[in-house]
Amino acid sequence: MSFITENFLLQSTFAQKLYHEYVSTLPIIDYHNHLPPAEIAADRKFENLTQIWLGGDHYKWRAMRTLGIDESFITGRKSDREKFLKWAEAVPYTMRNPLYHWTHLELQRYFQISDLLQPNTAALVYDRANEALTASEFSTRMLLTKMHVEVVCTTDDPVDSLQSHQQVAKTDYKTKVLPTFRPDKVYNFTSTADFLAYKDLLTQSSGVEITSYDTLLVALQKRIDFFHQQGCRLADHGLGQIPFLETDSHNPSKLFEKLNRNEALSLVEVQAFRFYVLVELCRLYHQRGWVQQFHLGALRNTNKRMLSQLGPDTGFDSIGDFSQASALASFLNVLDSTNQLCKTILYNLNPADNEVFAAMIGNFNDGSVKGKIQYGSAWWFLDQKDGMEKQINALSNMGLLSCFIGMLTDSRSFMSFPRHEYFRRILCNLIGEDVVKGELPNDEKWLGKLVADVCYYNAKEYFNF
Amino acid sequence: MSFITENFLLQSTFAQKLYHEYVSTLPIIDYHNHLPPAEIAADRKFENLTQIWLGGDHYKWRAMRTLGIDESFITGRKSDREKFLKWAEAVPYTMRNPLYHWTHLELQRYFQISDLLQPNTAALVYDRANEALTASEFSTRMLLTKMHVEVVCTTDDPVDSLQSHQQVAKTDYKTKVLPTFRPDKVYNFTSTADFLAYKDLLTQSSGVEITSYDTLLVALQKRIDFFHQQGCRLADHGLGQIPFLETDSHNPSKLFEKLNRNEALSLVEVQAFRFYVLVELCRLYHQRGWVQQFHLGALRNTNKRMLSQLGPDTGFDSIGDFSQASALASFLNVLDSTNQLCKTILYNLNPADNEVFAAMIGNFNDGSVKGKIQYGSAWWFLDQKDGMEKQINALSNMGLLSCFIGMLTDSRSFMSFPRHEYFRRILCNLIGEDVVKGELPNDEKWLGKLVADVCYYNAKEYFNF
Amino acid sequence: MSFITENFLLQSTFAQKLYHEYVSTLPIIDYHNHLPPAEIAADRKFENLTQIWLGGDHYKWRAMRTLGIDESFITGRKSDREKFLKWAEAVPYTMRNPLYHWTHLELQRYFQISDLLQPNTAALVYDRANEALTASEFSTRMLLTKMHVEVVCTTDDPVDSLQSHQQVAKTDYKTKVLPTFRPDKVYNFTSTADFLAYKDLLTQSSGVEITSYDTLLVALQKRIDFFHQQGCRLADHGLGQIPFLETDSHNPSKLFEKLNRNEALSLVEVQAFRFYVLVELCRLYHQRGWVQQFHLGALRNTNKRMLSQLGPDTGFDSIGDFSQASALASFLNVLDSTNQLCKTILYNLNPADNEVFAAMIGNFNDGSVKGKIQYGSAWWFLDQKDGMEKQINALSNMGLLSCFIGMLTDSRSFMSFPRHEYFRRILCNLIGEDVVKGELPNDEKWLGKLVADVCYYNAKEYFNF
Repeated sequence: MSFITENFLLQSTFAQKLYHEYVSTLPIIDYHNHLPPAEIAADRKFENLTQIWLGGDHYKWRAMRTLGIDESFITGRKSDREKFLKWAEAVPYTMRNPLYHWTHLELQRYFQISDLLQPNTAALVYDRANEALTASEFSTRMLLTKMHVEVVCTTDDPVDSLQSHQQVAKTDYKTKVLPTFRPDKVYNFTSTADFLAYKDLLTQSSGVEITSYDTLLVALQKRIDFFHQQGCRLADHGLGQIPFLETDSHNPSKLFEKLNRNEALSLVEVQAFRFYVLVELCRLYHQRGWVQQFHLGALRNTNKRMLSQLGPDTGFDSIGDFSQASALASFLNVLDSTNQLCKTILYNLNPADNEVFAAMIGNFNDGSVKGKIQYGSAWWFLDQKDGMEKQINALSNMGLLSCFIGMLTDSRSFMSFPRHEYFRRILCNLIGEDVVKGELPNDEKWLGKLVADVCYYNAKEYFNF
Repeated sequence: MSFITENFLLQSTFAQKLYHEYVSTLPIIDYHNHLPPAEIAADRKFENLTQIWLGGDHYKWRAMRTLGIDESFITGRKSDREKFLKWAEAVPYTMRNPLYHWTHLELQRYFQISDLLQPNTAALVYDRANEALTASEFSTRMLLTKMHVEVVCTTDDPVDSLQSHQQVAKTDYKTKVLPTFRPDKVYNFTSTADFLAYKDLLTQSSGVEITSYDTLLVALQKRIDFFHQQGCRLADHGLGQIPFLETDSHNPSKLFEKLNRNEALSLVEVQAFRFYVLVELCRLYHQRGWVQQFHLGALRNTNKRMLSQLGPDTGFDSIGDFSQASALASFLNVLDSTNQLCKTILYNLNPADNEVFAAMIGNFNDGSVKGKIQYGSAWWFLDQKDGMEKQINALSNMGLLSCFIGMLTDSRSFMSFPRHEYFRRILCNLIGEDVVKGELPNDEKWLGKLVADVCYYNAKEYFNF
Repeated sequence: MSFITENFLLQSTFAQKLYHEYVSTLPIIDYHNHLPPAEIAADRKFENLTQIWLGGDHYKWRAMRTLGIDESFITGRKSDREKFLKWAEAVPYTMRNPLYHWTHLELQRYFQISDLLQPNTAALVYDRANEALTASEFSTRMLLTKMHVEVVCTTDDPVDSLQSHQQVAKTDYKTKVLPTFRPDKVYNFTSTADFLAYKDLLTQSSGVEITSYDTLLVALQKRIDFFHQQGCRLADHGLGQIPFLETDSHNPSKLFEKLNRNEALSLVEVQAFRFYVLVELCRLYHQRGWVQQFHLGALRNTNKRMLSQLGPDTGFDSIGDFSQASALASFLNVLDSTNQLCKTILYNLNPADNEVFAAMIGNFNDGSVKGKIQYGSAWWFLDQKDGMEKQINALSNMGLLSCFIGMLTDSRSFMSFPRHEYFRRILCNLIGEDVVKGELPNDEKWLGKLVADVCYYNAKEYFNF
């Protein structure tokens, strides 16, 4: 039998009460993830457990590679069954990694399988799950419904047609499937060629001939308008660190012209161009009343050999140690100084920066909106018990946990929604510990309301989708 | 009834014994704070709870802004009563933030009010506290006496007349009220104009015509002499990071001349000037046998819009992620190399630097003085249970907790002295946990002496006021 | 009686079972330390406890200096007995520092002395231990045997004759005493003069006349070959941070020529030379199938006054806050891109970098070898309970604890082998806690095997000495 019992992670009766009576049945607002909209539009079903569970999951891939498992069993030519059996061999060795908890939580929640996944249970688990997957309740949409997902916000490129989102919107499907505007390619390109190629795509999708910095901004505004019409209320940005420019010595129009002449920018010019474009984008979001997100601190594509073989997002990214505080504060100040700073969520990947981020948000909370600037949920490598607890504690100590908009999956997988349950249990457990230790009053209703706010109501109010 | 019981934060009977029998009644040496000396000299009384408790407390202000409360209720035109009621609304939402503990600890210790502060108790609390405040025991001096404060060291500008300190010294008031020399404006100016304006003030207060780098140093020495006569034994410095100069290519006299011609220094020149002045100041402290403090790592005045409206120290500062180790080691080495390094306390604001600071002090502890170089108490944003525990643990692991000079309030408020109690409980609890887990011998007398040393006797011996 | 009981650090019965039944009797593979090979070759015995225990132990020295103890009692002219008595005075003040645990663990394990060391027991402890030291079982070799040490890897300079290693190898001594190739002086010199002096030594020991960059590499290869013949399978490197070069604008041959003309390199040139040499060394290790280690993050020789008096490694080093991630990833990528990245162990000294390192290893684990890239055990200042727990937790959360090759002493002392026991207890306790909290299945055999792997079998398989 699985160790994932009813009171998993809930070490006190107070925590158990909080979880079971106040938050366990709340709907989910998954305001940031990487679900493929086309698969929701098609209401895709999955042939087998490997396809729904292992395909695209670079967390599992990294673990398998660490164990010395050959790539053919991971992203290679082995059969889906062979891949699954190999993964099952690996699972016991993932003990203490979040994969171990996720694995068994997901098997239970989606398939009511409470066996531990390991070589001697692998075949049975595979067959049982595959049989279940044939049922209609295992289509992508039904999976979201089953998990009480009220909203999902996918992550989309400005040039995306949003066809899938439109298609879903036309149905009577109750879960809102909304796009998120993620314009990284406009300012975070690795070469002039990449920028120019992307500029052409943007010209096509916006219908605006991009011949200057100003027309670039017009094209972006058009796409923001289009995204807004499709229900988008969120932007997202992935950067090592926020670009910031101390001086006004650069001219974005000239930088555009240089790019447009197919010339390379210097490192400083790249930084400058990035800064100008990002500031303008943020002003456009503010005009629209959107929420902007910044995912800061990843060190991406570290392994060029594997990048050339498998492409990006295949498990060769990690945590950077970029300097964050000064540029971030200065950037937010530029927007705030003209009152054009919209609601903002800051996510950090290096936990050494937790307190920097948790304290930063207070600088721009100006009393205009409850929890206007948010310190985002523990992300990616930090999306595990220890990482979440540290994020919650840092936020509690430096800011107000009570205003927190809580968890999101950030996932590519339709089977990762139990991470909300995982977060909720961890949150309730922390509060329960405080009460048991006498550090918070033993007031169930009050604390029950606060955890429910963090798990659902704060996000509902904040985004107002 | 409040959750703040007799054994608040004391999870083991061993911890309870340590706290109640060894440290709870020890006097307080508050060797660094920002109390206004004029209010001590005037033995000010407060009209109401808002004035003594909310005025100037930017911790509370940040929390209120985060909750979306309008500035008029914070620093604005609303009545004191309205401000208090609004704060009371906010309090339940500060759960897990140190404000929640401080609030209830302070209400109990100063007013014997054990109600939880929240909307339905707010009016009663306000009225009861206001009534109490009319009594003579609520004057600034009596408040310090009530808390067994033996010494307070305020934070003062070199040009300050120290009139208030002199005035208090003439009375038979038992608590020593001593100044601290904080010369930030001499080297940490933001413009040449600021430097020149300050130079004029320094000329006036020192009686030394400052026309050169050398006369600048003479003027500073005069002020140090004057502060010393008033009982000052401490200097303090607030900096993002310690300035350090690898080369000797700059000449401080020339830099002074450039400033004096009303010219701007380059960034490197600013750094150089800062370095030279700071080193000379530290040598002067050493000559006097003072203790020097460095508060490193704050990122200040991040929000220019609010800075222009409300001025500095109003809740828009946060934690920086400056590089600290190399420059700090090199700077201390310069002083040490000529045996001019006086007793030094290093405080860090970014907890990611805890171990860097905790290990750093060992480099310059040379056997001449017990605990000569100190890793200072958890400060500002870190002045909470988690922050204190991490500071105590880092110090324990990298150095000797037994030599630690312990807590200080660093506060602007006459109602924040229970933070010493808070620290003492946390310290005793950590030791108690170690004993319960068998990681320390169960020897109450020995450990009782050590915690008493940290809470009082080490500071008494170290400063020898 | 000592607090170090049978179940020291083992807070649950599950942890106790894991420790006593699965790992307590496993042999020790101490794959990195600084034991003096000559003392093993000579099978040295020690006159007294001061010589075996205090001589060379800069951890103890730092603590004594912090307490204000005069250098004459530390490294100075006082008698061994006086030094010991002074250390005994200091011991109670080291509570919560790892020294307190190490001290009592070592007294028990080597001398069966369970008294607490403090002034009133000092003389007795000294006399009893000194008497014991006269016995043959207290020779260096017998001490290693007593602790079930299967392999020790010392740390040796490329120019070392390895005479002591050869001498030991010729005996029937069962513990393998192997050298480690640590070529820091080739690339991490502080002056051209130092480089040239070292070049001469390398010429002598290799028999290769070093007149160019290429002959430098040939000489290094010769020494690697020689070390390999003596059983060396490990290299080690101590650096603040990994050097990395973005461009190809430097030419190592030219840099060598400049050095060889006795000219100083610029800072950038030093970095470039360091990078080129280090990459070539790593390629040579790969050719040999060695394991390479990088100890990153120390800030060394911070106190020049004491350095000039006592030399390096006397207690004046500390923790740096160098930026690590980007250069480290880029450096490893250079080696990986041509498939010349050998098994690698990365150790960090600043715990703020724990997650950066723990995540970094996943970038280059490519499925070819189980645990190919290792996040090394908590090191130096981090070699204590808190530091080990954080390293184990970071590794667990970001990677796979199950593949970890575990502990090493990194010590200069023949009395520090109980640190393996200390690590094993801490590891078992963490796993036990997880089981007690229901975060891991209560499966003793499975978890017993995993902890045994980490404590012994993984290292055995990984190094295959």
